[in-house]
Amino acid sequence: MLANLAQPYLADLDITLRQIVRLIPDSAPGFGVMLRYALGWVDEHDQPYSQPSGKRIRPLLLLLCAEASGQNWSKALPAAAAVELLHNFSLIHDDIQDDSPLRHRRPTVWKIWGRPNAINAGDALFTLAYTALESLAADLPADTVLHTWRIFNRTALELTRGQHLDMQFERRSEVTVDEYISMIRGKSAALISACSEMGALIGSHDPDLAKLYADFGLNLGIAFQIRDDILGIWGDPQITGKSAATDILSRKKSLPVLHALSLSEDLVQLYAQELFAEREVQTAIQILDDLDIQEYAQQQEAHYYQQALAALEATRTAGPAAERLLALVHGLFGRKY
Amino acid sequence: MLANLAQPYLADLDITLRQIVRLIPDSAPGFGVMLRYALGWVDEHDQPYSQPSGKRIRPLLLLLCAEASGQNWSKALPAAAAVELLHNFSLIHDDIQDDSPLRHRRPTVWKIWGRPNAINAGDALFTLAYTALESLAADLPADTVLHTWRIFNRTALELTRGQHLDMQFERRSEVTVDEYISMIRGKSAALISACSEMGALIGSHDPDLAKLYADFGLNLGIAFQIRDDILGIWGDPQITGKSAATDILSRKKSLPVLHALSLSEDLVQLYAQELFAEREVQTAIQILDDLDIQEYAQQQEAHYYQQALAALEATRTAGPAAERLLALVHGLFGRKY
Repeated sequence: MLANLAQPYLADLDITLRQIVRLIPDSAPGFGVMLRYALGWVDEHDQPYSQPSGKRIRPLLLLLCAEASGQNWSKALPAAAAVELLHNFSLIHDDIQDDSPLRHRRPTVWKIWGRPNAINAGDALFTLAYTALESLAADLPADTVLHTWRIFNRTALELTRGQHLDMQFERRSEVTVDEYISMIRGKSAALISACSEMGALIGSHDPDLAKLYADFGLNLGIAFQIRDDILGIWGDPQITGKSAATDILSRKKSLPVLHALSLSEDLVQLYAQELFAEREVQTAIQILDDLDIQEYAQQQEAHYYQQALAALEATRTAGPAAERLLALVHGLFGRKY
Repeated sequence: MLANLAQPYLADLDITLRQIVRLIPDSAPGFGVMLRYALGWVDEHDQPYSQPSGKRIRPLLLLLCAEASGQNWSKALPAAAAVELLHNFSLIHDDIQDDSPLRHRRPTVWKIWGRPNAINAGDALFTLAYTALESLAADLPADTVLHTWRIFNRTALELTRGQHLDMQFERRSEVTVDEYISMIRGKSAALISACSEMGALIGSHDPDLAKLYADFGLNLGIAFQIRDDILGIWGDPQITGKSAATDILSRKKSLPVLHALSLSEDLVQLYAQELFAEREVQTAIQILDDLDIQEYAQQQEAHYYQQALAALEATRTAGPAAERLLALVHGLFGRKY
């Protein structure tokens, strides 16, 4: 159902994205293919790829917020392309930083073309994100474009702040839940918030209304990340496409684990062990379950989700476009609260 | 003398740069120090560093072009900060890509903090470059700001194109001089060109005049890179601060070498050898000298330098500010033609 809802928006987004990526000149053979691959359009030999990767949730959210808050959403397409390009830039660099060999079940850019090329491909997508954003000026008043740019800059900086904290937490023995929330505000929620705010700003030209949308997106983004943390431990491998308890095996400091570490000295000692394999994973999950950690995490998710819905409520948005926006939100969480 | 000329401009630039870099929030300990280090302000322990690194040639050029073409140069300070931040972003990523341990006689960012952090520090400087540029809007008409942004986007994309070609050339056996010029247009000259064009655009609000300045900068940038190539082979180690014939030892495909490779099969075979040490360096230089390669490269440099001066002449710029701009140009090349 979500796919039907998304189709007209994503079809136009695809056209806009391809126009932007075509700016990569032919005079640099082997350059464009890395970007097209990262966006899920081609395989590593530049041949069309049948399974599109990435769900384009962020640009879809932006377009729906633009429509729900007023304006013809097509004027927001360059901004939607910009957030998708920014997101993909950050994935390319993240995968190098985390040494991840796979993304969307395919080898990562660095795995195919090497780290130096992947750094540069990410930098190019980052630049194209700004190029897309600047093209808003063709259809919108200059002050709206400049305001959108300001939001985008702040967001990109938040991404690097969140990434810095994320990398730092891996090396630290103690991380509090508050520090963790601060990290995911930057690394995950800032971009969701920017999508909502920029969409509403372009849709309504009303900065105050856009602020409410920003608040909606920020809380939605935090809730979404916590949900991802829950799925990383208790998710069904058939649905998540990852192995069971993958975040436990990698000893990822996600919200459920951080909370459990603050409660259980046994878990602290287990996580400090040199060897950490299937048996240790089972023990860790047993500790988490004994402490009702899943319930705690679901409460946290619900808290931020409710905050998001309250902010959306405050926008007094109504009508078919608002319905579609709510359908996206419910679709993302796979159930109603 | 150049230092005296530069002093008032660079003092104000420093204030602007520090304001921008202070946007890195304190809530991310260990983040800002990497950026301050890269900009030459502090050592790796965040203590003030006495020898400023980097000559800030690009922002100085931008400010002088703004002044020479009309306007009070202080309005161009955010753009000057933006090009310096963009330049430093590209150096951080270049050093990772080239595995370079030293920059300005200090360990590179990745050498101290590791590659993942250095990638992120570069991304942050890139973002701050756009943040600086956006702040032009406080003092300038929106259309000038949007036009400047467009130039900046195109330039950043050219940087990634040039970097792609540069990395590709290292792995290719044959590279033509034309391909080489195309690469340095992107990697080196595009930013010098953008400095001139953005400076003149902010100074004059006249896009046609700014185009002439762009042409001046592009040719100046190519000439400057060729000069650097000459110094990399025949430069005095006392002055360049690098070991003699450093580009021969690293078998760098710079302009003199590419031209010589197209003329001498002996050099092709020498460069294909497994072992390449002091003796091979001497043989290579002998081959280059027998072919008068240094003279060829100097002619190429002079060609682009004359083109640059002709474009500057066409701007009909005159007065004390134009004199200072010419003094910078002459200073960069260390002699008059």
